[in-house]
Amino acid sequence: MISVVLIGAGNVATHFYKVFQNADNILVTQWYNRQLNNISTYKNNVDITDDLNALKPADVYIIAVSDDAISEVSKALPFQDRFVVHTSGAASLYDIDKKHRRGVFYPLQTFTKDADVDFSKVPLCIEALVKEDLKLLVTLAETINSTWYKISTEQRKTLHIAAVFANNFTNQLYRISHEITESDQIEFDVLKPLILETAKKIQNMSPYMAQTGPAVRGDKKTVRKHLKRIKNPQHKALYKLLTDSITDTHGRKKL
Amino acid sequence: MISVVLIGAGNVATHFYKVFQNADNILVTQWYNRQLNNISTYKNNVDITDDLNALKPADVYIIAVSDDAISEVSKALPFQDRFVVHTSGAASLYDIDKKHRRGVFYPLQTFTKDADVDFSKVPLCIEALVKEDLKLLVTLAETINSTWYKISTEQRKTLHIAAVFANNFTNQLYRISHEITESDQIEFDVLKPLILETAKKIQNMSPYMAQTGPAVRGDKKTVRKHLKRIKNPQHKALYKLLTDSITDTHGRKKL
Ligand SMILES: NC(=O)c1ccc[n+]([C@@H]2O[C@H](COP(=O)([O-])OP(=O)(O)OC[C@H]3O[C@@H](n4cnc5c(N)ncnc54)[C@H](OP(=O)(O)O)[C@@H]3O)[C@@H](O)[C@H]2O)c1
Ligand SMILES: NC(=O)c1ccc[n+]([C@@H]2O[C@H](COP(=O)([O-])OP(=O)(O)OC[C@H]3O[C@@H](n4cnc5c(N)ncnc54)[C@H](OP(=O)(O)O)[C@@H]3O)[C@@H](O)[C@H]2O)c1
Repeated sequence: MISVVLIGAGNVATHFYKVFQNADNILVTQWYNRQLNNISTYKNNVDITDDLNALKPADVYIIAVSDDAISEVSKALPFQDRFVVHTSGAASLYDIDKKHRRGVFYPLQTFTKDADVDFSKVPLCIEALVKEDLKLLVTLAETINSTWYKISTEQRKTLHIAAVFANNFTNQLYRISHEITESDQIEFDVLKPLILETAKKIQNMSPYMAQTGPAVRGDKKTVRKHLKRIKNPQHKALYKLLTDSITDTHGRKKL
Repeated sequence: MISVVLIGAGNVATHFYKVFQNADNILVTQWYNRQLNNISTYKNNVDITDDLNALKPADVYIIAVSDDAISEVSKALPFQDRFVVHTSGAASLYDIDKKHRRGVFYPLQTFTKDADVDFSKVPLCIEALVKEDLKLLVTLAETINSTWYKISTEQRKTLHIAAVFANNFTNQLYRISHEITESDQIEFDVLKPLILETAKKIQNMSPYMAQTGPAVRGDKKTVRKHLKRIKNPQHKALYKLLTDSITDTHGRKKL
């Protein structure tokens, strides 16, 4: 049995609370939030508190608060030599006060409050300075059926950038497609199956192998036609840069 | 019962052949390819030919050949006033010789030879000059459970550009994420669930609403850190341009 104290009551803390409550070998000993009313709905199921000085002993303290508050909250914890982790992709392990045994338990997925989370589809990036602590995080991840990856603080910084490309920037390309279709009275819906298929394809195939379209084909005529047709200068600049990126990746001549 | 003659034996023709054969109200009267051996495996199930002069009467002739060959093949068809469509997103309706009744039956999806295609997930963009012909395409689409959209040749050109953003360029962002993770010995696998979730999210929510991350948050500090950390100049240029695009979309100050 692993005992856990949760700190914070946002998206991440709430989803962890739910999955931990349903796991056989995890006990949420206590749930802290600075504003008690944000967790008061759970008061019959778990010991809730807004007083750091009332925190009980636990195998691990999970700080799931805004990135900027991690350092301050970890410092305010009125004990030392216990295992304290945060859940951030952006913060360093060393943002946690050094009086604690430190670690990271970062779920690499987008969470929204209402939507249920299937943790078997949430990769957990784990890090800890002490071997035994790392083992505890592995057990925690495996107990909720997550796939885990040992990722250092430096690697996590790199991973965060990669995630910006794979998630935020990809979503912006969806947005641009939306603008382009709307500009010609086409329903954006028509593109949705293609978008899903594009994401599914690379689950079992490298993006390199999955590439199709005018740029990788070296289809100069189509690229020119498209550039002529695109009026928005930002879309045009992106079209050029991404076409160059594709031709570079595939060792083709610039189009 | 709709009778169809298929022309071409590539990805698209083959997938149409399979779905039409399984449909109750569609009969593939004949299948033509210039190289007979590419369809000879099907000779016990359908009348195959490599002779355009042997083509039988049908309600619709579907030309699923390479874009460049559409015009030539349509011209070579030894009849007139029959309904002839192509399956291309890039070609014009007017690429079909004007001796025919012309139309387009464009499946907006990526096809690969081996993978089975679920046509209920393939939007069909249809176009025809004559109302009755359009109705036939609607029936054809509905019979194979596809969602159809009436899309003009001009709209199809726009749609093709939008699809390049949503599919080819998105895939290139996946590729860049792959490069970034590999550069720091991180398994690309860790990003795959996020990539799938990003595509799933916009099935029921606009990309505008779905946006998250440092750019839309106006998180200057993180954007600067990322730009400092990215060494590849092309990745850096893309990071900047896509960040600008996001801040513009969301009416924020440049970061
Ligand atoms: N959301 C995601 O998709 C996601 C994914 C992976 C990792 N993460 C990481 O998980 C952590 C939490 O993110 P989240 O999305 O759950 O955040 P959130 O929904 O915005 O919730 C933030 C929580 O932090 C608390 N908080 C903020 N400032 C505080 C302070 N100075 N002292 C004490 N508590 C404070 C808030 O308390 P109040 O309730 O009192 O305001 C709230 O409970 C962050 O490190 C984030 O980077 C998020
Ligand atoms: N693949 C996709 O994901 C996709 C999606 C939507 C629409 N489309 C469109 O569907 C059409 C077919 O694409 P595809 O992917 O099925 O192509 P493909 O797999 O490359 O097959 C091309 C077919 O065209 C035939 N062909 C080429 N040049 C010809 C010529 N001069 N005369 C007669 N036949 C010729 C080939 O005959 P041989 O077998 O004899 O070489 C082959 O059967 C294109 O207009 C394409 O834009 C494709």
